[in-house]
Amino acid sequence: MPLIVQKYGGSSVADAERIINVAKRIGAVQKSGAAVVVVVSAMGDTTDELIELAHTISHEPHAREMDLLLSTGELVSSTLLTMALRELGHEAISLSGPQAGIRTDTSFGRARISRIEPARVRRELDAGRIVVVAGFQGITAEDDITTLGRGGSDTTAVAIAAALQADRCEIYTDVEGIYTADPRIVSGARKIDEVGYEEMLELASLGAKMHPRSIELGGVYRVPIYVASSFSDTPGTLIHAVGNGPADAFAAGLPTAAKPEPEHITAISPSAEFQTGNQMEDRIKVTGIAYNANVAKITVQSVPDRPGLAAALFEPLAEASISVDTIVQNTGGDKSTDISFTVSRTDLPAAVRLVEGMAQQLGAAGVVSSAGLAAVSIVGSGMQNTPGYASRMFRLLANGGVNIDMITTSEIRISCIIDESQGRDAVRLLHEGFQLDRS
Amino acid sequence: MPLIVQKYGGSSVADAERIINVAKRIGAVQKSGAAVVVVVSAMGDTTDELIELAHTISHEPHAREMDLLLSTGELVSSTLLTMALRELGHEAISLSGPQAGIRTDTSFGRARISRIEPARVRRELDAGRIVVVAGFQGITAEDDITTLGRGGSDTTAVAIAAALQADRCEIYTDVEGIYTADPRIVSGARKIDEVGYEEMLELASLGAKMHPRSIELGGVYRVPIYVASSFSDTPGTLIHAVGNGPADAFAAGLPTAAKPEPEHITAISPSAEFQTGNQMEDRIKVTGIAYNANVAKITVQSVPDRPGLAAALFEPLAEASISVDTIVQNTGGDKSTDISFTVSRTDLPAAVRLVEGMAQQLGAAGVVSSAGLAAVSIVGSGMQNTPGYASRMFRLLANGGVNIDMITTSEIRISCIIDESQGRDAVRLLHEGFQLDRS
Repeated sequence: MPLIVQKYGGSSVADAERIINVAKRIGAVQKSGAAVVVVVSAMGDTTDELIELAHTISHEPHAREMDLLLSTGELVSSTLLTMALRELGHEAISLSGPQAGIRTDTSFGRARISRIEPARVRRELDAGRIVVVAGFQGITAEDDITTLGRGGSDTTAVAIAAALQADRCEIYTDVEGIYTADPRIVSGARKIDEVGYEEMLELASLGAKMHPRSIELGGVYRVPIYVASSFSDTPGTLIHAVGNGPADAFAAGLPTAAKPEPEHITAISPSAEFQTGNQMEDRIKVTGIAYNANVAKITVQSVPDRPGLAAALFEPLAEASISVDTIVQNTGGDKSTDISFTVSRTDLPAAVRLVEGMAQQLGAAGVVSSAGLAAVSIVGSGMQNTPGYASRMFRLLANGGVNIDMITTSEIRISCIIDESQGRDAVRLLHEGFQLDRS
Repeated sequence: MPLIVQKYGGSSVADAERIINVAKRIGAVQKSGAAVVVVVSAMGDTTDELIELAHTISHEPHAREMDLLLSTGELVSSTLLTMALRELGHEAISLSGPQAGIRTDTSFGRARISRIEPARVRRELDAGRIVVVAGFQGITAEDDITTLGRGGSDTTAVAIAAALQADRCEIYTDVEGIYTADPRIVSGARKIDEVGYEEMLELASLGAKMHPRSIELGGVYRVPIYVASSFSDTPGTLIHAVGNGPADAFAAGLPTAAKPEPEHITAISPSAEFQTGNQMEDRIKVTGIAYNANVAKITVQSVPDRPGLAAALFEPLAEASISVDTIVQNTGGDKSTDISFTVSRTDLPAAVRLVEGMAQQLGAAGVVSSAGLAAVSIVGSGMQNTPGYASRMFRLLANGGVNIDMITTSEIRISCIIDESQGRDAVRLLHEGFQLDRS
């Protein structure tokens, strides 16, 4: 019997009517002959409302208390969904995170799953029940309740699918899958049928709906993840181990970018690796355009260059759990250097405070920061070591009058930090320029 | 260091402002040098709202799911109260029922505490923390969440106080204590300073605010229970092991009823016990008038009398968890009998259904029922074996034109079932007639 893990997000269970609809979908899957585990988020805006309530009482609510408070949101939705399933005549049981054996570390508010003890889930499945698990929560070795932070319920679902060796993990949300760009920005954005974990990771971390940690987990345990809408039966996007080579991608019917204009291609000196194996045009592939408007930049000016400089600067940020993204260091001729880096806009005030203290110790001339930035990226597993994509991207942006502030690249991604006011235009320019609107 | 267990009801923590006020009260107790465990109910109408939500989804919500759902109400209030305590600078931690070691049987919706494992609570107290426990909930041996049903949070508080051998258990609510009658009915009702467990049990089970099970538990483990308002500093009522003799009661400043009229006293043939020990007038004592408007009566007419009749009739009701109160059986001369008994009004339809089936089997002539009844009772530990109180009660009601339908007595209580339309008048008549308005 196939085993399916399904996850429904907060908007899919926002009210009684939607919960009943979701129950019908789940029932149909079980009737089709599969064993089903369902992971569910809190109803609608419950989590935000609880956070707000906590802030009416405490300026800085204690993290452990906050987690126990927030864990109630998923208990409510999971029990209600189970009642709806039973009302439809299905055998079902809800399990809290602890009951489902979700063991975590003690990092309240952003706990990481240490292991899953799926004995109870298995027992309930063996008894023929649909098992509804409260997402986003776990329990420490000391019996304290934790929440998993951003993307927590997706992570719960993928982790349970991995622990149970489920056939696949289905993430149901209010969008119909993963797109070549944000459809709210690019009207011609197309849904991607399937995508590899690594590409999805770049798309996810740069603004798409799924949190990268669940994709990472899926990649490590090779859990096929299907992302689709809970409001329709339109096919969604399958994230799975597509071969690194584009031949696989073609075989699987993946969309590919049109061949780049010759002038850009000829400007490139392809690496040796690039020439071997498959045909060049097969490798040409931009899967999607990612966009993140929540970017701020800090520059430490004219800091005397010496070993350990970057470590001294970034260690305090890491300790404060502030994620640093793009880092650029320009060393001039005069033994001093400018270091610029980006953080999320919400982290900017805290980051500036920490960096200013450190900059003074390091003898820097000053610290400047700006908040109104965005990151626009092209993502595609066929791009590695292929400078043509970078220059083509820069040309498209230049032709559109978009000024590039910082650049960063990974194996399968090229990102530009630009002014936020030009961000949406940049996404459209790139989507059109890489011909992602054509199937 | 004295150890105090405090319990705050739903109205005491109904919103952020009230939660902060309660936190201030708790903080003051700790500052006075006591160790404090706090048990808290769900905020305001949370529990009712969750029940309503469940009923929008399921006609008959599954009991296990309902309990997991309802348990969230107390998790929310306990974490918020803990945040408020921390905001005021107190070390505090919230514990769910399971974390506090509240072990129960598996009767979902009305679980009974099987034992308390207070290790975690003790550890947190030893660390100097105020421990805030989510009331009303526990966990079974199979790791399922249960709720304790009516009076659940009071029961949690008294049980924890017993397990920790606390100096006392304080129940804070929206009334200022236990009264000689319902102050909404009798304007001259006076607050009782202290009362024994048994008397309180009768007052509680007949309409006062506390659920009898917590009083019972307090009596068994000799936990002094102090009932007072969370909204004022007015002294409340202490429920504890007052000596059976009224000398103790007098020493403690207990209110006593005025000496009954001589004609009633002389009508009595006091038992031997009655004459020994203390002076007669010291024993004279009606503590309060209890009132319960939620009474319905069922009569099984002309049922052939034979051994086992009552058992056959009442066993099905017990199996359906329907509580039967007053039972009256009148055997006529003709080998057949009428059996009348009362149930709560909400249980009436189910009870009639069960009784009708059984009455037919037993060869009864018919079953009649009426819903609009009330029970009015005089309660006092000095009344045992003292018929004078009964006759005085009947006379007072008769003089007031109140017709008595059924009568039942216990060691410390005499109850009359009357028409509900005369109920409030009857309470006032008795309160005045036994001179409870005079201190």
